[in-house]
Amino acid sequence: MTHPLFEKHQATLEAAVNAIHTRGYWSAYPEMPSPKVYGEGAQESGKQAIEALVGKDFALDQPGCTTWLAPERSPYGVRLDVRYPACRPQALIEAAQAAQPAWQKLGPQGRVGVCLEMLERLNKASFEIAHAVMLTTGQGWMMAFQAGGPHAQDRGLEAVAYAWDEMRRIPAEAVWEKPQGKNPPLKMKKHFEIVGRGVALVIGCGTFPTWNTYPGLFAALATGNPVIVKPHGNAILPAALTVRIMRQVLSEQGLDPNLVTLAVVERREDTQALAIHPAVKSIDFTGSNTFGQWLIEHAKQAQVYAELAGVNNVVIESTDSYKAMLRNLAFTFSLYSGQMCTTTQAVIVPAGGIDTDQGHKSFDEVAADLSAAIEKFLADPNVANAVLGAIQSPDTLARIDESLGLGTVALASKKIENPEFPGAEVRTPLLLTCDAGDEAAYMEERFGPIAFLVRADDGQAAVALSERLVREHGALTVGLYSTRQEVIDAMTEATLRAGVALSINLTGGVFVNQSAAFSDYHGVGMNPAANASYTDAAFVANRFRVVQRRYHIE
Amino acid sequence: MTHPLFEKHQATLEAAVNAIHTRGYWSAYPEMPSPKVYGEGAQESGKQAIEALVGKDFALDQPGCTTWLAPERSPYGVRLDVRYPACRPQALIEAAQAAQPAWQKLGPQGRVGVCLEMLERLNKASFEIAHAVMLTTGQGWMMAFQAGGPHAQDRGLEAVAYAWDEMRRIPAEAVWEKPQGKNPPLKMKKHFEIVGRGVALVIGCGTFPTWNTYPGLFAALATGNPVIVKPHGNAILPAALTVRIMRQVLSEQGLDPNLVTLAVVERREDTQALAIHPAVKSIDFTGSNTFGQWLIEHAKQAQVYAELAGVNNVVIESTDSYKAMLRNLAFTFSLYSGQMCTTTQAVIVPAGGIDTDQGHKSFDEVAADLSAAIEKFLADPNVANAVLGAIQSPDTLARIDESLGLGTVALASKKIENPEFPGAEVRTPLLLTCDAGDEAAYMEERFGPIAFLVRADDGQAAVALSERLVREHGALTVGLYSTRQEVIDAMTEATLRAGVALSINLTGGVFVNQSAAFSDYHGVGMNPAANASYTDAAFVANRFRVVQRRYHIE
Repeated sequence: MTHPLFEKHQATLEAAVNAIHTRGYWSAYPEMPSPKVYGEGAQESGKQAIEALVGKDFALDQPGCTTWLAPERSPYGVRLDVRYPACRPQALIEAAQAAQPAWQKLGPQGRVGVCLEMLERLNKASFEIAHAVMLTTGQGWMMAFQAGGPHAQDRGLEAVAYAWDEMRRIPAEAVWEKPQGKNPPLKMKKHFEIVGRGVALVIGCGTFPTWNTYPGLFAALATGNPVIVKPHGNAILPAALTVRIMRQVLSEQGLDPNLVTLAVVERREDTQALAIHPAVKSIDFTGSNTFGQWLIEHAKQAQVYAELAGVNNVVIESTDSYKAMLRNLAFTFSLYSGQMCTTTQAVIVPAGGIDTDQGHKSFDEVAADLSAAIEKFLADPNVANAVLGAIQSPDTLARIDESLGLGTVALASKKIENPEFPGAEVRTPLLLTCDAGDEAAYMEERFGPIAFLVRADDGQAAVALSERLVREHGALTVGLYSTRQEVIDAMTEATLRAGVALSINLTGGVFVNQSAAFSDYHGVGMNPAANASYTDAAFVANRFRVVQRRYHIE
Repeated sequence: MTHPLFEKHQATLEAAVNAIHTRGYWSAYPEMPSPKVYGEGAQESGKQAIEALVGKDFALDQPGCTTWLAPERSPYGVRLDVRYPACRPQALIEAAQAAQPAWQKLGPQGRVGVCLEMLERLNKASFEIAHAVMLTTGQGWMMAFQAGGPHAQDRGLEAVAYAWDEMRRIPAEAVWEKPQGKNPPLKMKKHFEIVGRGVALVIGCGTFPTWNTYPGLFAALATGNPVIVKPHGNAILPAALTVRIMRQVLSEQGLDPNLVTLAVVERREDTQALAIHPAVKSIDFTGSNTFGQWLIEHAKQAQVYAELAGVNNVVIESTDSYKAMLRNLAFTFSLYSGQMCTTTQAVIVPAGGIDTDQGHKSFDEVAADLSAAIEKFLADPNVANAVLGAIQSPDTLARIDESLGLGTVALASKKIENPEFPGAEVRTPLLLTCDAGDEAAYMEERFGPIAFLVRADDGQAAVALSERLVREHGALTVGLYSTRQEVIDAMTEATLRAGVALSINLTGGVFVNQSAAFSDYHGVGMNPAANASYTDAAFVANRFRVVQRRYHIE
């Protein structure tokens, strides 16, 4: 018997599975915050719903709660003070384990149906979640809506589609009939049960609390595992809203809501205790190399899917669209003040300059023109505030100043006032120039609005430097500007060897730091920036096992 | 353009993919050593081919060879003295890396086509490989032929089918066209390249040098990785024959034969150096817990797929076919003298005895009747020698004597003479009885012809003990004999929780230690006996990555 929620969402699921097999353009959840799609007044009521939470207890009815915590501080300087229940790790683990058997027995169709219902509810709550993302992360409103709402939901759906695509190919049962020559055949009935490997821990980051959380969350859930969501201490609200909606759907379905819980903790040791708990069998993590490596070293009982730091880079060897290239890069550096895991940090340019449709440009001219392009793009304070958002953490704010001595300043970072949020910490990008030999400067992640124009010997050296950066320090994205096929070929080979996604000659409305669900493979899992991709079979297939039983039949 | 070898073997591949999706009975390579299939005189000429190798250099033309080694000693007491080239680990790694790019560029179809050609050639060499397996492992001839030849080839094909089933669903390219309202759409061409993660190391065991090696070998190869095969020091010949055939196919195809090499080493440190080499990205291992845990601890740069020790067990709660049950168990204990990773070690029986179609049987009666069944089955020396084979290692021989004090002897182990091989070490099973509380006796793997009849309080306690054995000490197989549905249900739930394959009421021609390719999931990967299954998407999906590039098109 088909599960009613599977039937309800089957068309969406089939379209999603088709999309992961073809990887052209497809999206399930509209990215435009249009009243026609999301209803009249949805934006305002979403905002009000969040404002109504300020200073209150955020009830979740989870087990083992010991106290209430309100650690969030908005980068926009507005008051949050939402109080979340802190629960004992052991209580969350035990509740998760208690919820798993019924979830397993629901079977792949039932689980996938429930996951799709959850995603639909999350989509309906996109404005609420968008405001929570904006206020906790410092993202501009449009990015908070798109990346925090529909794009994150698409990534969640993508993970469910991969999980379904793996699970549906495992037969629930089979008859095995082996011929025995002239004797009757040996005949057995076999049952194959998909069993989740155990409690999943999903550890979110402070900048993309839904986009980077939904893939692991839904991959683990769809494959039969209970999930404990441990959000970043400064971006709890989007995760809390998500968990509450998912728990509501579970309760409505007569399932144990403790299948999905929120772990708000006082100390890092509590997160560590969860991570090394013998019952925890998978950990999805986005964040720093330090804690990521700690997890890989210590949480040996679990499969760790980690997205860590990297040094994304772009090689400019030549271009036939100089101005469009500069505009494209200016937007990349400005968007969310460079606080994306995919933002370019190093732009590698030959010391002798580059050939362009505007004539030859020296290295210093490229630096000056790129700086001018950024300034021009951010000249209108409305545009600047909408695109830059606010700086998520005090560490990043401090890092901008600390980075001043790492090179020659081509473009200084400026503080911009935000009339709507007087307390917001808004900064424009800092652009430094340096030599390829100044490795200590640019060869580590400087998270935030900090970029380097790196002087390489020539185009070939630039490509080689890009490859080395990826291999040794990791990258989620690299870009290339070149009009020469042999350079494009060399860069293609370099990225295949190093294992990183390449964008070539982006001069229009697509940016190297953008990754489209159902088309772009986010992360590759072949270089130090990530040990897994969100968007392949490997991300889901190792989260469950097949347990069989067999017996003779006549 | 389709690769010619892909076209040649496409029907086999499609049938194999259908088989992994339906998991009924299917096999590509005939298990009967019939002259009709394998040719007149194939058995004799295979044997002669192996005899011709005795005392000679086994040429492989690999790089970095420093000396020749001949460590094998046959459990049948016959002379081998085949000398293999020992090559520097670093030379093998570098040769593997040099061979990878062309293998990658061949694409999934080309790689799968070449793998299937290799398997066909291995099948044609089944008699040769069977004799090598028999002489190095001590398996009886028929098992050496079936498990070492066609069954191993089926398992290799199964891995290729899983790899193909994953790779074929990744499009090589896509056009991404995103609507922009009234403006022209954004349009990009994207390329998706499947890239192997790097050098694969496949470490074989001394008892099943092909059956336990082919899955990892072919999974790694099909997904784009070069492979270094490191056989057990006493079972090199079957691996060497395999590697030579694979290298021949590569050379014929104009590919670098160093894509597949054989690592024969003098010291364990050489294997360790290979295992922790930064270029090695996956390790397939079958063997001891000690070295397996060392690999998991130290080879952090690699994904480790490990099949380790376990305590396989069978619960007898009741039966309606007492004699057939005893016959079935007698065969299980006798086959290859219990030297299978799937052989039962502990038979758990209620202290109060069991209900059977022959009336109630006390615990001691079950012990006596099982002993008698084993004695009866092995009464004919021809049958005994054919089924028992020889004891593979002196450690196992010593273990039989050392185990005498671990319980009350129900059936002593006997040495049997083998007229064909006077030097063969042939032993019948040792059966001991003990109490459930004698955990030190039966709660660790006693590899070889050593089994325990364990006295549990009652049927419920027996099921609980079985679950605990699996959870704490691991198991690849468990069995149950019961006529009561509630006991079958309880055991089913226990095995789903513990993660182990269950065989129920085997009384005919199928045995708990047998695992049929394309139908049975070998290993589950959920308990300490193995961290992976050979037969699922997780076994292949994490061996490659997808690297993309994208650019605008009109």
